[in-house]
Amino acid sequence: MELEQLGSLRKTHYSSELSQKLNNKEVVVGGWVSRIRKLGKMTFIVLQDKFGTVQLTAKKGVVSDELFEKIKNIGNQWCLLIKAKVTLFEKAPQGVELIPIEIKILNTAIEQLPVDMTGKTMSDLDTRLNHRSLDLRHPQNQAIFRINSVLLNEIRKFLVKNKYTEIFTPKIIASATEGGTELFPIKYFEKDAYLSQSAQLYKERLCGVFENVFEIGPCFRAEKSFTNRHVCEIYQLDIELTFANFDDVLTALEGLVQHVLKQIKKQCKDDLILLGQWEEFKIPKIPFPRYTYQELLTLLEEKADMKIEFGEDFDTEASRKLGEILPGYYFITHWPMSIKPFYIMHDLDDPTISEGFDLQKGWLELSSGGTRVHDRNLLKQNLIDKGLNPEDFKSHLQAFEYGMPPHAGAGLGIARWLQVLTGINQIKECIMYPRTPDRLDP
Amino acid sequence: MELEQLGSLRKTHYSSELSQKLNNKEVVVGGWVSRIRKLGKMTFIVLQDKFGTVQLTAKKGVVSDELFEKIKNIGNQWCLLIKAKVTLFEKAPQGVELIPIEIKILNTAIEQLPVDMTGKTMSDLDTRLNHRSLDLRHPQNQAIFRINSVLLNEIRKFLVKNKYTEIFTPKIIASATEGGTELFPIKYFEKDAYLSQSAQLYKERLCGVFENVFEIGPCFRAEKSFTNRHVCEIYQLDIELTFANFDDVLTALEGLVQHVLKQIKKQCKDDLILLGQWEEFKIPKIPFPRYTYQELLTLLEEKADMKIEFGEDFDTEASRKLGEILPGYYFITHWPMSIKPFYIMHDLDDPTISEGFDLQKGWLELSSGGTRVHDRNLLKQNLIDKGLNPEDFKSHLQAFEYGMPPHAGAGLGIARWLQVLTGINQIKECIMYPRTPDRLDP
Repeated sequence: MELEQLGSLRKTHYSSELSQKLNNKEVVVGGWVSRIRKLGKMTFIVLQDKFGTVQLTAKKGVVSDELFEKIKNIGNQWCLLIKAKVTLFEKAPQGVELIPIEIKILNTAIEQLPVDMTGKTMSDLDTRLNHRSLDLRHPQNQAIFRINSVLLNEIRKFLVKNKYTEIFTPKIIASATEGGTELFPIKYFEKDAYLSQSAQLYKERLCGVFENVFEIGPCFRAEKSFTNRHVCEIYQLDIELTFANFDDVLTALEGLVQHVLKQIKKQCKDDLILLGQWEEFKIPKIPFPRYTYQELLTLLEEKADMKIEFGEDFDTEASRKLGEILPGYYFITHWPMSIKPFYIMHDLDDPTISEGFDLQKGWLELSSGGTRVHDRNLLKQNLIDKGLNPEDFKSHLQAFEYGMPPHAGAGLGIARWLQVLTGINQIKECIMYPRTPDRLDP
Repeated sequence: MELEQLGSLRKTHYSSELSQKLNNKEVVVGGWVSRIRKLGKMTFIVLQDKFGTVQLTAKKGVVSDELFEKIKNIGNQWCLLIKAKVTLFEKAPQGVELIPIEIKILNTAIEQLPVDMTGKTMSDLDTRLNHRSLDLRHPQNQAIFRINSVLLNEIRKFLVKNKYTEIFTPKIIASATEGGTELFPIKYFEKDAYLSQSAQLYKERLCGVFENVFEIGPCFRAEKSFTNRHVCEIYQLDIELTFANFDDVLTALEGLVQHVLKQIKKQCKDDLILLGQWEEFKIPKIPFPRYTYQELLTLLEEKADMKIEFGEDFDTEASRKLGEILPGYYFITHWPMSIKPFYIMHDLDDPTISEGFDLQKGWLELSSGGTRVHDRNLLKQNLIDKGLNPEDFKSHLQAFEYGMPPHAGAGLGIARWLQVLTGINQIKECIMYPRTPDRLDP
């Protein structure tokens, strides 16, 4: 079939912009056929665009014979540009439907679609991810990524308003940063290099220049992990505050979280409803509850008869149990120094306790951060204590020779947060093209 | 020297927020010592923070003896937190200076700084990049990256306002996209993979889902190029418009450029002055001039006696000459198909001419884009015509099987644009930690 040209016809409205105010007006809409019903003298098309759907009704006699014949050939997921008249239709979400005047068939689609786009039940995840370019058009996925857009935009608005400087830390790095496992090696001309697994060290250097900084950028983790919350390429929000301590970063982070949640509640009601999240969508009060690691050890023992040794991390089972007891947003503070990286500051009163924290939503760790070491000598000593070689961190230590300010910060996984916001259990669904140990394409 | 703790003291003002309105008020400022002058009974400190500098004057007898002694020990680039009284001082940019009441020495610095931070002349570039964490504090670099912040923020504001959806395309890819040279190979578990050199193919797939899309993300180019406008890791703005043609993307791009330039003029006057760019900072009129490739061949021959064969790209010499004749923003359109990639659409009247374009600022190519092929059969034929194997593009071609809309877009190098805006000749200075064939650290 010969595809039609756009010519001079352009979209005037998205589906979400249609309303009864436009009754009898001509509009141009464009998108994909998400459903088509042919009933003899009537054809109904549900056209989907990035903001929703609108129904087109073509009745023989009302639309021209030529147009009626053309419509009969149209199939699912074909790409159309349609000039139409708005007419009242109370049953539609916008209260209107469209009577087509002119239809341009801009592209066709194969007949046997590999993913079910109509039903409420979705195809299995592997099939969907194999045909992601189609799967992402599913209303549920559109809703997830509309929320993602608001999430990203509101994070940045909050940070820019609070005078954080946006930074870009390098993604190709010369040496293993936080220990050395879980890195993807890369051949960089004649040298060996790695993909950055975290913005941590560079953002610390840059907060010694630009004070409060942020980045939303990719991190690469060569973890052979097959859980529903790990992938190999993630986008992480990194913030670092200067002239700031532990309490300041908790305050900044909970302020950011609350701001974003308020905006999502305000801007994404329809999407939250579609995802079944509207009823339970709560704006948490500030300050978020804060529990020390030790308090949670006690809590798990008392409430769940679960014994965890001081110095052990919470495993999945313990995290699940914590999530049952504490379903909202809360901080875990005062982690043991022994399980925190070299750049985390210790408690001034008790060097076995760290000034590191996690921000949890129920059982899920959303963010992790803490006060950093800003004293070069202590940083070097911490490297040695962790069995690392200060020579490997020469250029990092150098950045601490010119008046590095006290600083504290956090990293937050964007897709993890999106999981929480959308109620999606599997992180791969919250990433457009996820990368896992067994998924590199598409 | 024992470093002091923050305690409960926090910054109340950045240097740029000080004004005569605050006369006699107490403020807390923090930052780095950029100059210190000790004259017997007077000590002057110029304190720098992320938004500028402020002078502190400590006069024996006015400040306590203890404080005066403490100040005498302070050195360049030490990190200080200072409670002080604001007092009028007409010669200062803000019209005030500060009389210190309390000074916390939060960190010291080595005495022999590797980079000259005081003079107007800067140290040589290699030395500066080797000590980038210090070098970036130089007022010129602070100005460059303050402009970068506004640039990024205003690009996103413009696009979000115009309903573009933010996308993240994967950076680890399974196969060579646009031909295969200039890619960094990476070991992805047991598979071979590459670092993405461009968001092109994935953003096209995603515009078939989210319509107009944008991304600001890293691209990796394994080019052994040592010019002043190439590096191996860049951040690129990618936009893609759907239900749109060639003219639409030119209009969108020039609208974006003009919006950003207006905002930079409005928000960055002091920085443009510092960089010597204020006088010549012009807002170009819309529409930008449009020249066909053929017109520029003729122009070069007539005005510069330079003969370029149809089908050849403009080399550096020709570009420089074009920049002399056309110093502003302008588009080059109608490039030969032969030097454009497979996904660029040809002119409907003349298949040897492409619907590809470049956006130039004088001699520098800022952006490149065009109408894309949205017809799967034509896309496959183009691959074959370019000597590429459609099998290698299987999952990409698949995305064109479900009603891909007509689309057109562009990619724009952030650091290149920052070069233009700041008048900086060397792109490495417009990137926080640049990556070149011989620079991987810091």
